[in-house]
Amino acid sequence: MARWTPGARERLQQAALDLFATHGYDKVTVAEIAEAAGVTERTFFRHFDVKREVLFIGQDEFAGAFLTPIGDLPDEQTDPGTIVLAALAGACDFFPDDRRPFSRARDAIIDAEPALQERELLKLAGLTDSLTRAMSVRGIDPQRARLAAETATVAFRTTFATWIADGENRSFRAVLDSVLADLTVLADGMAAHPPIS
Amino acid sequence: MARWTPGARERLQQAALDLFATHGYDKVTVAEIAEAAGVTERTFFRHFDVKREVLFIGQDEFAGAFLTPIGDLPDEQTDPGTIVLAALAGACDFFPDDRRPFSRARDAIIDAEPALQERELLKLAGLTDSLTRAMSVRGIDPQRARLAAETATVAFRTTFATWIADGENRSFRAVLDSVLADLTVLADGMAAHPPIS
Repeated sequence: MARWTPGARERLQQAALDLFATHGYDKVTVAEIAEAAGVTERTFFRHFDVKREVLFIGQDEFAGAFLTPIGDLPDEQTDPGTIVLAALAGACDFFPDDRRPFSRARDAIIDAEPALQERELLKLAGLTDSLTRAMSVRGIDPQRARLAAETATVAFRTTFATWIADGENRSFRAVLDSVLADLTVLADGMAAHPPIS
Repeated sequence: MARWTPGARERLQQAALDLFATHGYDKVTVAEIAEAAGVTERTFFRHFDVKREVLFIGQDEFAGAFLTPIGDLPDEQTDPGTIVLAALAGACDFFPDDRRPFSRARDAIIDAEPALQERELLKLAGLTDSLTRAMSVRGIDPQRARLAAETATVAFRTTFATWIADGENRSFRAVLDSVLADLTVLADGMAAHPPIS
């Protein structure tokens, strides 16, 4: 029972989510998570520094899903729209359909705990900063880079919220396309007005 | 010296900002702020519950600057772009040119203190929620309402960051117009690509 098995990390995450959902995040101990996953506490701590990390591990892969496709673009590519679209398309690969039940359960637990919400907000703020930097190093001016990064983060958050909604069964990509279509309509609606000043 | 004078609140805020900038937010006491403003501590606490509120008072007026113009729109107005533009135009009135030195100083202090940054993020998250609700009650679907509210918040944040930048002297409205122009170009750039899915 104590030996390391492939997939222990995923089993620990799943066991933790089930326990958090049943008993509440605060009430569940690492010992209980390890027991439910059929491993020792030592194995738990081989994968996660603290209990909370069972919900936040994989943050580098998450950021990488956005940033790797930007790195793959030619250096001459300096159109913010093209760059953030590449990042968003990459993010889709991180959310295949079979990840949806996990994402849904994770979100419900985070939603119930202000401290976890803050952690999640920081994670997304970090993503926005990374996207801004990835554009700045291409020479895009700071205002445009930040606006594009923030808008991409908003598109991601909105897509994610719809994708995990009850009864939603479209793919992440299909939802993202509908969000981007809404964004175009929104921007056109705003552009149709005379300047504010 | 102890009597209440009109404008005491503003003098206390200005004195606090000056002291925070010189000595650091943590090092400054309420007694020192009151003394610098020429009032008693009692007068300070007539205006602010705790030291931190000297930086966050007026939050209702801030939210009101966005929400009042939405309330003034006819009930039949259900275009998200029109609604958030009205909100952003209202926000401009909250940031006249003579407020810029105060906003700049306040931002520098918040930027230096993680706890104050969190408070500021929460304030903006609250604004996004209020804008979403103001659209939802008009029957706008949740995804469109949230996307428009988040996009408006992004436009506001980007405008604010440019408006307080060193050497910037365009009005808040003029900067907002340039941000909205960038946003249109960004959305058009994203829309010019084929669907992701």
